[in-house]
Amino acid sequence: MPTSPTTSPTASIIVIGNEILSGRTQDKNLHWLAGELSKIGIKTVEASVIPDIESVIVDTVNTHRPKYDYIFTSGGIGPTHDDITSAAIAKAFNTTLERNAKAADILLKYYGKEHLTEPRLKMADIPKGAVLIPNPVSGAPGFTMENVYVMAGVPAIFQAMFSGIKHHLAGGPPILSSSTTAFIAESMIAIALGNLQTDYSTLEIGSYPFTRDGTIGTRLVITGTDSEALNQATEKLHLLLDNKKVDYQCDSPPH
Amino acid sequence: MPTSPTTSPTASIIVIGNEILSGRTQDKNLHWLAGELSKIGIKTVEASVIPDIESVIVDTVNTHRPKYDYIFTSGGIGPTHDDITSAAIAKAFNTTLERNAKAADILLKYYGKEHLTEPRLKMADIPKGAVLIPNPVSGAPGFTMENVYVMAGVPAIFQAMFSGIKHHLAGGPPILSSSTTAFIAESMIAIALGNLQTDYSTLEIGSYPFTRDGTIGTRLVITGTDSEALNQATEKLHLLLDNKKVDYQCDSPPH
Repeated sequence: MPTSPTTSPTASIIVIGNEILSGRTQDKNLHWLAGELSKIGIKTVEASVIPDIESVIVDTVNTHRPKYDYIFTSGGIGPTHDDITSAAIAKAFNTTLERNAKAADILLKYYGKEHLTEPRLKMADIPKGAVLIPNPVSGAPGFTMENVYVMAGVPAIFQAMFSGIKHHLAGGPPILSSSTTAFIAESMIAIALGNLQTDYSTLEIGSYPFTRDGTIGTRLVITGTDSEALNQATEKLHLLLDNKKVDYQCDSPPH
Repeated sequence: MPTSPTTSPTASIIVIGNEILSGRTQDKNLHWLAGELSKIGIKTVEASVIPDIESVIVDTVNTHRPKYDYIFTSGGIGPTHDDITSAAIAKAFNTTLERNAKAADILLKYYGKEHLTEPRLKMADIPKGAVLIPNPVSGAPGFTMENVYVMAGVPAIFQAMFSGIKHHLAGGPPILSSSTTAFIAESMIAIALGNLQTDYSTLEIGSYPFTRDGTIGTRLVITGTDSEALNQATEKLHLLLDNKKVDYQCDSPPH
């Protein structure tokens, strides 16, 4: 069972947007953020893609809030009618949406008085008590309510917002991993891998089959926070492949 | 509020795999399947990415089963220790995992007697009462339990499996859409878009800002099952952009 008992803080990523669920737009934030969180020792335990429907946003956020250390949302904080995330978050926290003076000031500086239209000012309507997340790309800020981080859906803005907050997040021990590509069907080494997993129960050994240009192979990824165990398990994996005369390459050593 | 009262059947997509949550692998199945379902008039209402943990798989599947017409899962039905989806689905349905004679026969034909190892045979362990989903790529089948469709995580196999079942799914009226790129910040047309949404409440008008090579723009997507309303709303949108002297292009007319 590939669960690793680590002391990593946990996260949930909630992608909000009909365009993702319709298959029209390929989400990029989930994959990117999950990778960034791994680097700082925060384990993404669940991710959801939900529609722009207020009750669904409220329910999902409120279900995840008590379960995880961090909740990150992506999307729905722009100026148009389909941007309803800020109002939904206010509702989730039983508070009101109010014109945030600091956010309005940021927008005024960004757009100038002449171009600060009412729809743009709507982006300064933020739940009462929220702390702003700076947006160096396009002015309009995201915000934090307790453990919920509300960010824009546009990947460049999402990434810029996260860069501004990540140093404030309490991470755990870094999540390390090694990756090995074995040119063999995974079923041929399944038993040995299962035994290796049993021997190293604090690590997570993943096996991901692929077919590339007619070649069958398996990417073997060992993950965990115990660097000593990770080194050992990776060595044993390579020894195991040597013994079985399996052609393989180490894509990345433990790091 | 961008909810469209359609009679479309609903779906939930559940992507199972630690490698997605760690940010190591970019999932491709969610986006692909959501697009395929739209084409046949099935509306994806929710998507989840969850880890390879039995209790989480059981809970997620059992929470979604009564809520949606179709549940599609991706991943975790291979031969290694981290492939636990089949056992979890059996548990979710309060039934047992049993060696499926038909599946074992498929594997025997695919691998030949000599190469049909025990880990490979494990892929014939399928919940009692399941109907098999053929796998033209690599033999080992997926399966259906009531409204839950359990498929492989490897995109080529996932896609091949879905192609085999999609003609058996009861779709709704096709979900049509038009797409227009307006070279203007979305906040400049936010009010007009909101009004258009109010006028066409059976449609869903989405506004997706982008920055490309320094150009600011907004992709405007109108979606719905009422082709007459879609044609009208798209025409009105273009008229509105003409009137505001906004540079735009119609990426795809209503279809």
